[in-house]
Amino acid sequence: MTKPLILVTNDDGITAPGIEALVSIAKTIGEVIVVAPDSPQSGMGHAITVNAPLRLNRGNYFPDIVNYSCSGTPVDCVKIGINKILKKKPDLVVSGINHGSNAATNVIYSGTMSAAVEGAIENIPSIGFSLLDHSFDADFKSSKTFIKAIILKALKNDFPHYTCLNVNIPKLIEKEIKGIKICRQATAFWDNDFDERKDPLGKKYYWLTGQFGGHDGGSDTDLSALEKGYISVVPTQFDMTAHHAIGELNRWNFNQ
Amino acid sequence: MTKPLILVTNDDGITAPGIEALVSIAKTIGEVIVVAPDSPQSGMGHAITVNAPLRLNRGNYFPDIVNYSCSGTPVDCVKIGINKILKKKPDLVVSGINHGSNAATNVIYSGTMSAAVEGAIENIPSIGFSLLDHSFDADFKSSKTFIKAIILKALKNDFPHYTCLNVNIPKLIEKEIKGIKICRQATAFWDNDFDERKDPLGKKYYWLTGQFGGHDGGSDTDLSALEKGYISVVPTQFDMTAHHAIGELNRWNFNQ
Repeated sequence: MTKPLILVTNDDGITAPGIEALVSIAKTIGEVIVVAPDSPQSGMGHAITVNAPLRLNRGNYFPDIVNYSCSGTPVDCVKIGINKILKKKPDLVVSGINHGSNAATNVIYSGTMSAAVEGAIENIPSIGFSLLDHSFDADFKSSKTFIKAIILKALKNDFPHYTCLNVNIPKLIEKEIKGIKICRQATAFWDNDFDERKDPLGKKYYWLTGQFGGHDGGSDTDLSALEKGYISVVPTQFDMTAHHAIGELNRWNFNQ
Repeated sequence: MTKPLILVTNDDGITAPGIEALVSIAKTIGEVIVVAPDSPQSGMGHAITVNAPLRLNRGNYFPDIVNYSCSGTPVDCVKIGINKILKKKPDLVVSGINHGSNAATNVIYSGTMSAAVEGAIENIPSIGFSLLDHSFDADFKSSKTFIKAIILKALKNDFPHYTCLNVNIPKLIEKEIKGIKICRQATAFWDNDFDERKDPLGKKYYWLTGQFGGHDGGSDTDLSALEKGYISVVPTQFDMTAHHAIGELNRWNFNQ
């Protein structure tokens, strides 16, 4: 069997330790190419760059791997990686390892996961990995065995069409991780606030801040699995239709 | 009954004709406040600004309406509008009218719809409106009667929890519009390409382009309704779990 072609990206930028860890795992499995943002792109969601040009620079961040940094968003990286660099679809898109959680509603704000969702839109098996540790010095080693196992399962099995996996890893040493659980996305939210500050000229500016909370209480959610010491895997799709609400809206009789 | 409080935003920016049209409708229904981006934010998806401060400026774009322009994304506008300006939840969030379609998979790239989805995350009845005409001079008048009717229905009925509406309007004169259809999001995609150009110094840059296509053939989709001359209404949620894939993934036996 020929080696699978794996496109690696992230949202923390090409110099982040998280992507280095992911590349070190991916290269033991397949032929790896990296196309990642040239600067941090956290919270970029599914943004694409339509009003500005993109720059693409061959890099030397990974001496033995072809790697490019891109001036755009994580989704731009996937699009330009497939269209301009690979000129074909890879066998797998992996994104991360994110420095910080993308569980629950975070998925929708996440550049890491949006890159994986873009892979799903292209119907390529795609996985976003996130470690529940925001720090630059986060310990990515403890999750390597699990990440490799998840990638191998994804390559071996029939991957669900138009779907990607949202994998979140608790901040634990390897032997404390209890295993892997398939979950649904928890309904939990940011309680936002804005720091109000003054610039040197005395003019106000605001900085987004907040607390995450309001867990939905389900035992089948990603947040519940993570709290219990499991790695959570949520199959994630881009059909945002609230199918359950269609009947209710039809009873509103819009045309009367 | 007191007048409903309506927060209006968009992604084309506070000076776009589309938001002017939406404000002119909303102010016949309720108390209106505008918090919209100070520059075009098309394709920003659910991006939020976490690595930079935000500026908020009281504007005079709408002489009889309190209005602010914000340096952030459409989602930032909703967050800062609720937290810093209103200091309470409005009765309704409306976003648009977008210059261009947000039907099918476009919903995930759309700043207009992401603002509505952010309203849904706050469990506020929220609606994104888009007209299938990209031009600055798009005819927003023809859809005013329908938009007003949809807003009134949304205020009168029990709005489905944690849901927003994705409303797309065909480029037709009013009497040619056949009515309103509740739909699901079509599975249809961009066939992307990148224009490759050279800057004045001879260095390459890329510009995202593409063709939209690959309609899924269903007669219950937004694209199908629009093609037939109907306004499409898709109830839209932020639970991205591919619930149908959970069983299949459990059979991958991750823990063996």
